[in-house]
Amino acid sequence: MYSFANDYSEGACPKVLEDLIKTNDIQTPGYGTDVFCKKAEKLIKDKVGNDNVDVHFITGGTPCNVLAVTLLKAHEAVICVESGHINTHETGAVEATGHKIITVKGVEGKITAQEIRDVVALHDNEHMVKPKMVFISNATELGTIYFKKELKELYNTCKELGLYLYLDGARIGNALTAIGNDMVLKDICRYTDMFYIGGTKNGALLGEAMIIRNDTLKPDFRYLIKQRCSMLAKGRVIGSQFISLMEDDLYLQNAKNANIMAQALKYIFTQTGIRLYLDTPTNQIFPIIENSLLKKIENDYVVTPWGKYDDNHTIVRFVCSWACNKDHIQDFFNDLDRYINEK
Amino acid sequence: MYSFANDYSEGACPKVLEDLIKTNDIQTPGYGTDVFCKKAEKLIKDKVGNDNVDVHFITGGTPCNVLAVTLLKAHEAVICVESGHINTHETGAVEATGHKIITVKGVEGKITAQEIRDVVALHDNEHMVKPKMVFISNATELGTIYFKKELKELYNTCKELGLYLYLDGARIGNALTAIGNDMVLKDICRYTDMFYIGGTKNGALLGEAMIIRNDTLKPDFRYLIKQRCSMLAKGRVIGSQFISLMEDDLYLQNAKNANIMAQALKYIFTQTGIRLYLDTPTNQIFPIIENSLLKKIENDYVVTPWGKYDDNHTIVRFVCSWACNKDHIQDFFNDLDRYINEK
Amino acid sequence: MYSFANDYSEGACPKVLEDLIKTNDIQTPGYGTDVFCKKAEKLIKDKVGNDNVDVHFITGGTPCNVLAVTLLKAHEAVICVESGHINTHETGAVEATGHKIITVKGVEGKITAQEIRDVVALHDNEHMVKPKMVFISNATELGTIYFKKELKELYNTCKELGLYLYLDGARIGNALTAIGNDMVLKDICRYTDMFYIGGTKNGALLGEAMIIRNDTLKPDFRYLIKQRCSMLAKGRVIGSQFISLMEDDLYLQNAKNANIMAQALKYIFTQTGIRLYLDTPTNQIFPIIENSLLKKIENDYVVTPWGKYDDNHTIVRFVCSWACNKDHIQDFFNDLDRYINEK
Amino acid sequence: MYSFANDYSEGACPKVLEDLIKTNDIQTPGYGTDVFCKKAEKLIKDKVGNDNVDVHFITGGTPCNVLAVTLLKAHEAVICVESGHINTHETGAVEATGHKIITVKGVEGKITAQEIRDVVALHDNEHMVKPKMVFISNATELGTIYFKKELKELYNTCKELGLYLYLDGARIGNALTAIGNDMVLKDICRYTDMFYIGGTKNGALLGEAMIIRNDTLKPDFRYLIKQRCSMLAKGRVIGSQFISLMEDDLYLQNAKNANIMAQALKYIFTQTGIRLYLDTPTNQIFPIIENSLLKKIENDYVVTPWGKYDDNHTIVRFVCSWACNKDHIQDFFNDLDRYINEK
Repeated sequence: MYSFANDYSEGACPKVLEDLIKTNDIQTPGYGTDVFCKKAEKLIKDKVGNDNVDVHFITGGTPCNVLAVTLLKAHEAVICVESGHINTHETGAVEATGHKIITVKGVEGKITAQEIRDVVALHDNEHMVKPKMVFISNATELGTIYFKKELKELYNTCKELGLYLYLDGARIGNALTAIGNDMVLKDICRYTDMFYIGGTKNGALLGEAMIIRNDTLKPDFRYLIKQRCSMLAKGRVIGSQFISLMEDDLYLQNAKNANIMAQALKYIFTQTGIRLYLDTPTNQIFPIIENSLLKKIENDYVVTPWGKYDDNHTIVRFVCSWACNKDHIQDFFNDLDRYINEK
Repeated sequence: MYSFANDYSEGACPKVLEDLIKTNDIQTPGYGTDVFCKKAEKLIKDKVGNDNVDVHFITGGTPCNVLAVTLLKAHEAVICVESGHINTHETGAVEATGHKIITVKGVEGKITAQEIRDVVALHDNEHMVKPKMVFISNATELGTIYFKKELKELYNTCKELGLYLYLDGARIGNALTAIGNDMVLKDICRYTDMFYIGGTKNGALLGEAMIIRNDTLKPDFRYLIKQRCSMLAKGRVIGSQFISLMEDDLYLQNAKNANIMAQALKYIFTQTGIRLYLDTPTNQIFPIIENSLLKKIENDYVVTPWGKYDDNHTIVRFVCSWACNKDHIQDFFNDLDRYINEK
Repeated sequence: MYSFANDYSEGACPKVLEDLIKTNDIQTPGYGTDVFCKKAEKLIKDKVGNDNVDVHFITGGTPCNVLAVTLLKAHEAVICVESGHINTHETGAVEATGHKIITVKGVEGKITAQEIRDVVALHDNEHMVKPKMVFISNATELGTIYFKKELKELYNTCKELGLYLYLDGARIGNALTAIGNDMVLKDICRYTDMFYIGGTKNGALLGEAMIIRNDTLKPDFRYLIKQRCSMLAKGRVIGSQFISLMEDDLYLQNAKNANIMAQALKYIFTQTGIRLYLDTPTNQIFPIIENSLLKKIENDYVVTPWGKYDDNHTIVRFVCSWACNKDHIQDFFNDLDRYINEK
Repeated sequence: MYSFANDYSEGACPKVLEDLIKTNDIQTPGYGTDVFCKKAEKLIKDKVGNDNVDVHFITGGTPCNVLAVTLLKAHEAVICVESGHINTHETGAVEATGHKIITVKGVEGKITAQEIRDVVALHDNEHMVKPKMVFISNATELGTIYFKKELKELYNTCKELGLYLYLDGARIGNALTAIGNDMVLKDICRYTDMFYIGGTKNGALLGEAMIIRNDTLKPDFRYLIKQRCSMLAKGRVIGSQFISLMEDDLYLQNAKNANIMAQALKYIFTQTGIRLYLDTPTNQIFPIIENSLLKKIENDYVVTPWGKYDDNHTIVRFVCSWACNKDHIQDFFNDLDRYINEK
């Protein structure tokens, strides 16, 4: 039973494991101060085109988001779209740090500069929280991506209004290798105050790389990582994986593969007359599937019902991972064909 | 330059890595709901001799401790010895959850039942926090261990006073394989409300197994794991490692090796006329080393100065890991001999 | 310049002050354990018709709301309408306790049972917070009131779903004396788990009376009051005021006066052809005022612009207090007439 | 039965009440933005000799302390003596904000510069919290006072080490009017970053005045007051009281009276051969009383047993308030004489 449920169903991509094994016996100091983390840091600084950023290795995506928000003062709040991961699927981890999330509608998972302005205009006195950070994801929770012009506008708006712009890059590889994308890591770094490059959803066992460009946010960050349960004793485990992923652009290759497979799925659906809930260029696609067909699919595949479309149709999420290959797609194509013809 | 700095200087023990690789391609659901976590859970339930416990896999030791304290109500506090890890080396992670730590002196890193009674007697009204949990470590931060009679008395005292007894088992393997130890995992489980079996310090890449026996503490624990940044998307990574460690008692073998190597070191020191700050049966030892000798040692070895003993001597911590072997000890013996004869 | 800005513009109502002075020299123990608090507690138990409730005196309304939410477990959340005071005007005080607020649209400031059901249905796994408390206000932030049938349905829904129903009674006097109201304090107590009777907005210098009916929520509440900065050393100051307010139903008289004055204002507006944004039976009214007229009003009166209605009109909030009298209303009537005729 | 239990057993001192009544009917805006708060602010700026300080009126002492600590970043901690109020009698309110308290022994309730240095030296890496604020009280919880030389040294030490010095002035009037005191409010303001002038324990119904001199700590403080439940809707109630207390130095007169009465009590005890646990110049004294004598005293007076001295003696705290007068002392003298002669 093949799973299109997410992009973290398998272990790590082979190169990542090989490197871990190769260096396993070397003794290193703990907590991310080792040679592997240092080398990975260097590689990442090169990729983001900025030697002055701080790079930290973190256990996961929710931890990264929690750490970003923990930088705020007690009365400061974070703005994000309603579908933002911190708002929907982190069990209130942000609020557990004491900070309010202010939500806006957004458009296809993306926030607009105007929405940010409106929130700031509304929150004009001490009986309300003070907006201080904007949270975005790229790719978004809906599989869409930001374009350079958009990100730049968001960043400039944030600077004008005295806000930090933080980008959740759990699927940043998928964004940067999507058809139509016009950015590279250097752009992401230039137009945010802080962001992370996700490992977990792109071939690592675990781990994300946090990049802090804004000097105000840098001091004492390691204290927070430790305090907020996001520091590994064997920090090398994440450092080593990011070396593997950054060298020879394995990171982008993994993401590109996932995108291509998902786009192939998309093609299959649309060719079969199945509409999409929204068109996405990354590794998540959202076909609108007739309920009896969905039932058949679910006999053979793991997929995620995303919401009711109408009485007879369900929006379904299919995710492809770095490990998905042409055979999986071909099999699904054959099966889909069969399901439909059985009807 | 060999390191006796800690027991997490190397990667994982070979079997752990092998098993990770072997199962790498299998697709599983995320967040600890996979077959590996389920199998590891089964193995652990057998070891602790209780099928009704809840078992959860957590990213690290500080996360475990934070989760335990997060179970308390807002005004409830945790009692521990001054040297308790949560009090000294977790960057205020417990207080960051909003809870006060009440410290007592302890004896060689261990809390006494009388100290617990005294704290509870003192905190008798609503202008003070309400003690509700006792935190202990086994082995302790000073390398000492609890004996069955002691643990039982602590547990009974806690039950009498309406407190939870929580045990930090980062080095529980070292405790249970120490010379003189009279407990097995079943005893630990019987005489605590909740404890964890540490993987990180005993041969895993990362990960600990939390065991909850007290029914009151069980509900909704997965919500907390997620909220407190301690859940891996690829939960299998921890599950798989605990299978490797639990099968054939690899866990105890690793710990025993570490203990034996440290005890050999201890023997070397005492034979050489070097006193110990306190006598410990586990994988941490604390010789009192003359400062000029320490300097020489530090040229070739990584060790941890633990505190000033007097103007000429320093208490030094040596830790041996699962990966330490006879050659490392023999080398150190030769070197120590040389350092001293050079004097 | 007369103020219709709120119902806490004046000091205390005369009887409240007189009683404070009369008892000023008596020595009492601190922190709400005095004879005045005890007597006020007794009076309140009579009014709410339940001798088993716990009664606590709290410094203010935001403190009451914070205390209610502090009773939740770390992963539990509170549901309220978007206009709920905790969501809009408490500077994130609820989130500062670590808990998420889940908002629903509501109807004229009131939550519906269906909205509660929908939230609970959606939050079905540990990646989301767990809804556990419903927050309502009566009168609501929009001046509307709940009817007995509605409150009963909300309560039953909460019980069915395992939720607590908490009622913010900052303006409960205004609700219970509104035209059309069909409840008394006994109903409020019967159909909530916990609520407070507001003093600040109904003639006290400060202070609210929290009533806890649900036994689960009672233990150790005084610990929370102290910890969350909501306990007065001279607790008697609140106790004494609630004696004054509860005796001879001064509390309801104050509220009724405020309502009548506001309803008179409402009559003036509607007679003058000025529409209302929504019709409210309590001491807050929301006329839609033409902008040039508003300017004139604001030269002589303090009122609160509530939101833009259209390019030429503003929704304005007028609040009458226990201290507002016929002359204030008559003066406003005369002034309004003049403003309009000047046009 | 007369109470020496504390200095907040009575209501407010007469002038405070008179002024409240006089201004009761005046309408003001809420939340401390009224004319009374403004006038009190002006008076306080004069007294502290600094027109650039920020002055805020807060509901109580624990709230003040909580607000001070809330200014810290997530990983920063506060240092205080073991007997510090925040450590012992605020139900973990500081920890509930997420911050750790680091305690030192102190000398007679006072912290030393060396203790501060030692704490900072010890906390040198990210596995420990980062000390950032020093909390002191004047008068201390033991009734002792700081001298100018001491305060200046503490302040200079804090500045050298990058720490804030915060002073809890719940009984600052008692300190500044104590025999031997060599400071005025201007000194307190000059040698701290932030402190509060306590109203509750010196004749107000409630309320304290927070003074912030350090510019870093000033921004957005009103957000915190609101969020942390420490802002009154009728802020005027505190403003008005501080006008009364500051005008004609009523504040110092109240405190001086309390001191003199306590010192008279002290004289009575020492004349009667009853020793003191420690000698204090303020309104708290700590005689060591024989247990059978204590029993007799407790039949007629409310006093506070402070701790066991030996099997036959108890350390007892006597506190005199602004309202205590010569007759109360004379009566106690007569009664004590009688108790002793009955023996």
